[in-house]
Amino acid sequence: MVLIRYGDVSGFELRDLPKPGLRPGHVRVRVFATSVNPVDCKLRQHGPAAAPGLPAVLGADFAGRVEAVAADIRGFAPGDDVYGCAGGVRGAAGGALAEYLLADARLVAHKSRTLRFRESAALPLVAITAWEGLERAGVRAGASVLVRAGAGGVGHVVVQLAKSRGAHVTATASSAQRAAIVRGLGADAVVQCSRDDGPDAVVRLTDGRGYDVVFDASGSNDFGWAAGAARLKGQVIAIAARGQHDFAPLFSRGLTLHLVYVLIPMLHDAGREKHGAILAEVASLVDAGRLRPLVDPRRFRLEQAGDAHRLVESGTATGKVVVDIAEL
Amino acid sequence: MVLIRYGDVSGFELRDLPKPGLRPGHVRVRVFATSVNPVDCKLRQHGPAAAPGLPAVLGADFAGRVEAVAADIRGFAPGDDVYGCAGGVRGAAGGALAEYLLADARLVAHKSRTLRFRESAALPLVAITAWEGLERAGVRAGASVLVRAGAGGVGHVVVQLAKSRGAHVTATASSAQRAAIVRGLGADAVVQCSRDDGPDAVVRLTDGRGYDVVFDASGSNDFGWAAGAARLKGQVIAIAARGQHDFAPLFSRGLTLHLVYVLIPMLHDAGREKHGAILAEVASLVDAGRLRPLVDPRRFRLEQAGDAHRLVESGTATGKVVVDIAEL
Repeated sequence: MVLIRYGDVSGFELRDLPKPGLRPGHVRVRVFATSVNPVDCKLRQHGPAAAPGLPAVLGADFAGRVEAVAADIRGFAPGDDVYGCAGGVRGAAGGALAEYLLADARLVAHKSRTLRFRESAALPLVAITAWEGLERAGVRAGASVLVRAGAGGVGHVVVQLAKSRGAHVTATASSAQRAAIVRGLGADAVVQCSRDDGPDAVVRLTDGRGYDVVFDASGSNDFGWAAGAARLKGQVIAIAARGQHDFAPLFSRGLTLHLVYVLIPMLHDAGREKHGAILAEVASLVDAGRLRPLVDPRRFRLEQAGDAHRLVESGTATGKVVVDIAEL
Repeated sequence: MVLIRYGDVSGFELRDLPKPGLRPGHVRVRVFATSVNPVDCKLRQHGPAAAPGLPAVLGADFAGRVEAVAADIRGFAPGDDVYGCAGGVRGAAGGALAEYLLADARLVAHKSRTLRFRESAALPLVAITAWEGLERAGVRAGASVLVRAGAGGVGHVVVQLAKSRGAHVTATASSAQRAAIVRGLGADAVVQCSRDDGPDAVVRLTDGRGYDVVFDASGSNDFGWAAGAARLKGQVIAIAARGQHDFAPLFSRGLTLHLVYVLIPMLHDAGREKHGAILAEVASLVDAGRLRPLVDPRRFRLEQAGDAHRLVESGTATGKVVVDIAEL
């Protein structure tokens, strides 16, 4: 699926392309499934600076089977079942909205044994984002963590990873149905509230003290909400930042703000090994029964990639939106 | 020295007030010297929310001698020489622009043996600010630290404390004279540049890679400068934040921003013990010859407090501005 112009989904066009050639440090993967993240939609919409040049194959997350490896590759062999976040941006070797993906092996890990490919494809970008945020905030046993948008793509992983670190996890959800899902993921407390509600209802649960760590997984850009929910000298994790914002609410509470931008290793070829290592640990957590992906029930084939993008952009998906590329 | 209206220094008026009465948890100190920090000027200028109600005694930093202690006090006795940052804001028991200060003992420490009172009075607020920032950023041996405004009140302490942690320290200074001072404080590299210069000259010293930690001690509010000087996923420490700012430069490099607001323990009665503990460690570093305050040579008596405020506001002081309250 090739993007021939930046903008809305009408820029997608199904085309036959040659199978990508091998390069040192890379593996070629037969892609069975990919998932769509909000950042894929932003790259499609806005183009440069982070998007690949046109015509472009988008798609960061994938799960599939190694079909060939470069001569210098250790640790992967043809036939290995793998997953990763390795395509669809400037600096990547290919894109995952395709039957074959050339991927930097440092960004790849063996997939969990217990998940289907389409479930594995839902995890990489959101799991790395959640992992990096919690790690940078030093979340450990006993910490109180608030997850905004706990049923979202990133949020549902944050809830589970924070629990696996021993934190006390509160999450917000925008409907009763989503609240039930988040409870099922192990959240200790769930507050149903809309995007327009202030943080008062969640702060009340802490007797007004606020949370040690607030992970705003909503992608809202609204730092004021997170600042209002954090304790004095607490930590805020955010996964998006556009436009002008008032720092005063963050400053007056003496907060630390961690900005997690998961594309950096791909864009700058810096720290890629870390992403592969995180995904290996994530697969172990999955196989240990401590993490499972939340996948929206709607199904899309490769030629429906535009519809999958539209669903992500609508903000109505529950968890991740997956595109099936091969029948398995 | 009483502030009778918020605004410019004409609101100061010398008055006789009764000696403050003791309260549980407090010590009464005969103040020998106080120093003026930019935040004192902001409190004077802007009044609430953080300023004490009028008529107010301003002044956070002090050094002096314990004259009396409340019945529940352990660790301090009359005659002890002490210093601290304990006055002049909403929530504090008094202000340091006075002959006697009632201070929460948790905010107080014994002063170093090797410094004069006026030198000790220069340290508390800036040393706590520097300490907290470096601690929150986890600065340790081998880290590359850039200090913006290395000859300033906070900056000159950051340079020395970062060196004592084993970091490689680069600092900026706005004149050749200040650059020489910062070199004398132990900075490994000093770049002379003005407030309007971008970070290119300092980034060049890292072959374009950027610094692990950027401590913007200029109070500039200009996060773009620090973001441009930090390495990917590096850390920025800032000590001021007003108005609207663009988060994009921080986000696109995946940075962590630590906002250090040193008044929080006084304003919210939270974590005050930590400030006393930091000051005890700071006094030890001073006595070990690893830290010394930089004090502007101009001298002020209590009745000249307004002139001292004006010097701080002019931005032309070198290091700290001290007001002498008693001859010693």
